[in-house]
Amino acid sequence: MKKIEHIGIAVKNLDTANKLYSKILGIEPYKEEKVDSEGVITSFFNRNGTKIELLQGVKKDNSIDKFIEKRGEGIHHIAFEVEDILIEIKRLKKLGFKIINEQPKKGADNNLIAFIHPKETNQVLIELCQKI
Amino acid sequence: MKKIEHIGIAVKNLDTANKLYSKILGIEPYKEEKVDSEGVITSFFNRNGTKIELLQGVKKDNSIDKFIEKRGEGIHHIAFEVEDILIEIKRLKKLGFKIINEQPKKGADNNLIAFIHPKETNQVLIELCQKI
Repeated sequence: MKKIEHIGIAVKNLDTANKLYSKILGIEPYKEEKVDSEGVITSFFNRNGTKIELLQGVKKDNSIDKFIEKRGEGIHHIAFEVEDILIEIKRLKKLGFKIINEQPKKGADNNLIAFIHPKETNQVLIELCQKI
Repeated sequence: MKKIEHIGIAVKNLDTANKLYSKILGIEPYKEEKVDSEGVITSFFNRNGTKIELLQGVKKDNSIDKFIEKRGEGIHHIAFEVEDILIEIKRLKKLGFKIINEQPKKGADNNLIAFIHPKETNQVLIELCQKI
């Protein structure tokens, strides 16, 4: 794990949330991106290398709407940047963690990503991401 | 807002959670600290300047136990480092945000802290912190 790469926040409406976080952070999002594999649209804010990702569900049965239904809007995941995602997955599996995506997939913002199952991490959804 | 300073995670048992996050992050906590004003004990992990704070309630009516009762263990807050906390509070109040601690208080890890009310930030509890 190199550092916290971003915090993901589940929101109902990306436009409204973009305005809100622009006010709080004093900056505009540097990109919006649709992630088809997850059925979500996202936006990113960057404050000196630490990022906030806002996520709104768009496709049926997406994980963001499910999260909001269960827990309400709020922080959805922490993403850690890793040097080599396959080595990191191997290391965590050896330690007994369950990895949701043993085969990493393409995530937002030019990253290969994989999630650790939150049942084993105090309900904290942890994403590993490796720059492509 | 300068950058994400840390992510706070509410846990039931600090010792158990320390072991868990040591495994995940591959490092040990660099400090444990009791914060009397909040009725909590905390531990901190640092990965290249981005930090994880684990928080366990110890005093009666502490906010961590209340959070866990309502939402379960999990991510409790995002803390942003600010240059001048009083200026930042003033800026956010002007924008219509409600600040829980208009008079900043002493938090963990040598910071002056104040929270923005989560009702106005998609249920995300945001902490401002200024190095003392």
